[in-house]
Amino acid sequence: MKSPQTEPANRFLRACLRLPTDRTPVWYMRQAGRSLPEFREVRKRHSFFEVASTPALCAEVTLQPVRRLGVDAAILFSDIVAPLVAIGLDIQLVEGTGPVTARPIRERADLEALRPLDPERDMSSVREAIGMLREALAPTDTALIGFVGAPFTLAGYLVEGKPSRDFVRTKRMMFDEPELWDGLMRRLTEIVLDFGRGQIAAGAQAIQIFDSWIGALGPREYARFVQPHMRRLFDGLRAPSVPEVPRIHFGTGTGTLLELMAEAGGDVIGLDWRVNLDEAWARLGGPERVSVQGNLDPVTLMTSWETVRAEAETVLRQAAGRPGHIFNLGHGILPETDAAQLERLTGFIHEFRM
Amino acid sequence: MKSPQTEPANRFLRACLRLPTDRTPVWYMRQAGRSLPEFREVRKRHSFFEVASTPALCAEVTLQPVRRLGVDAAILFSDIVAPLVAIGLDIQLVEGTGPVTARPIRERADLEALRPLDPERDMSSVREAIGMLREALAPTDTALIGFVGAPFTLAGYLVEGKPSRDFVRTKRMMFDEPELWDGLMRRLTEIVLDFGRGQIAAGAQAIQIFDSWIGALGPREYARFVQPHMRRLFDGLRAPSVPEVPRIHFGTGTGTLLELMAEAGGDVIGLDWRVNLDEAWARLGGPERVSVQGNLDPVTLMTSWETVRAEAETVLRQAAGRPGHIFNLGHGILPETDAAQLERLTGFIHEFRM
Repeated sequence: MKSPQTEPANRFLRACLRLPTDRTPVWYMRQAGRSLPEFREVRKRHSFFEVASTPALCAEVTLQPVRRLGVDAAILFSDIVAPLVAIGLDIQLVEGTGPVTARPIRERADLEALRPLDPERDMSSVREAIGMLREALAPTDTALIGFVGAPFTLAGYLVEGKPSRDFVRTKRMMFDEPELWDGLMRRLTEIVLDFGRGQIAAGAQAIQIFDSWIGALGPREYARFVQPHMRRLFDGLRAPSVPEVPRIHFGTGTGTLLELMAEAGGDVIGLDWRVNLDEAWARLGGPERVSVQGNLDPVTLMTSWETVRAEAETVLRQAAGRPGHIFNLGHGILPETDAAQLERLTGFIHEFRM
Repeated sequence: MKSPQTEPANRFLRACLRLPTDRTPVWYMRQAGRSLPEFREVRKRHSFFEVASTPALCAEVTLQPVRRLGVDAAILFSDIVAPLVAIGLDIQLVEGTGPVTARPIRERADLEALRPLDPERDMSSVREAIGMLREALAPTDTALIGFVGAPFTLAGYLVEGKPSRDFVRTKRMMFDEPELWDGLMRRLTEIVLDFGRGQIAAGAQAIQIFDSWIGALGPREYARFVQPHMRRLFDGLRAPSVPEVPRIHFGTGTGTLLELMAEAGGDVIGLDWRVNLDEAWARLGGPERVSVQGNLDPVTLMTSWETVRAEAETVLRQAAGRPGHIFNLGHGILPETDAAQLERLTGFIHEFRM
């Protein structure tokens, strides 16, 4: 187990701690799954949650991008709603739609369904997969990142019952039933906190918190209804009971939320493609304060290699080789992406010198 | 016709010119249509484009929110794709989806479909509706705003063939076929410019340019692939051949694009709810440089009146009574909105004093 007291050798972990690296570390959101042919083979025979909840399958698909691409970090194959499925909620991943639940949360009595997560019982397969992955991964080459959905993004799915663009019911609950909202967010924060701590205890060497839909909120809404819970979550991931690992704080559409998100917590702030990396890093206090991860537009991967190379180089030049930059996309890999582009891009990032 | 040389009496037009007003002017994007019962009555008998292209119907639904709400401006009932329909493209507004075309634009030959707009022939019903509206509206009470979609948002529909979240084909054309993209944007800019000029010539006293989906782009993409065309559009709307009217530049998800948008043009910059109005106005140079319009979250209207009032007051306090603020939502009214909330809100804005 790495801790900030002993300097890690792995590039990704070093960048999380803003230590110098020989090359810019790189990994990709959604690298496990979607675009890789070897993943599609597995999915022909197993559902998404079968893969996620069977340790050998989960470990296999988590390792696939490491083998093919040589990325500096693996991320546990999971989904944002995984801890909710683990406590027994009936959530289906509907192809082309996303997570759907027949029993949305609308009133106080519905909160009862959100029982605390028992890491021993509810995470046995996740912990086993993490153990297998730590065995399989060469520590110097590849770090293992844990995967946790953030409370707001989970609340959005649960209150709306399905993916939403406007989050009407969610915002209505925030404003008009603030105590119910607070109760929901507190329960979700505890669940994801236990889910994150469980992954760290099992061997995850870093943890990424996905607040994928937070960009639906304005800064006032974020500060009032989300930030206190995120602060508790980030503080809780630094409890004495678990090893101290870097925490990555990611969302999309966060151009006007970045400072508030960084205030809530995170050793690394994930940037989407709607910001210039250099400007966003400066707003966050620069490499003296925090690391950044990002931020190539994932659509770029569907253009020519010349475009991919030029755009990736722009990102690297904005980072200017300063310690604390982890190369990644601004959001997850799109399903239609050609794996060959990812291979070339990874090689390019690793070869690049300022 | 008003021009900046003679000070207008209407509150909305005064605020566009950053002149003092007795009360904060207010109107709402999508005020004509969607949530009003009297509009739904009209739509029971006529399709969207029947309403838009029949002068008496178009004028009627444009006036409905003026009568019910007492807003300071009416906006011509139209749709972003209206000029494309006017030049004969086969575009359907599919309920619950948006504009769909069976003939997307993918290669140079497809550009031929984008013939220039002939204001005389292609805009006769629009010009007639505007004439009727100027007759019906009391100039001191209610200004008439023209409605134009921006080239990028139009290009997105045309290249994808339907509304899109990721704009994969659109961005691929930008990056990999920059000459084709440039040709498409040039043709679209000419079409919307003629459509806007035609509305101004017919009597529109201001014009709003809707770049609704521009927030899909990062700042570098915007600067390279969109801004030059937007600059030409805004400059062209100030041609000697048409009266000089205020130009409103609106988009959503523009938190990191605002400065670039203002650079391209606009006497008024529309703000969505993801920014604090005071901070955004300061970034744009404040009331000395430009007016701002916005920015209540449209979802707020689906919460309790107490919430609507409190959130609207926050927006007004951020504007601090400075000349140059036009109250509006951060995006269009959602269909489920109760018209009674809009009535109360309008009254509140007009009664409010700092």
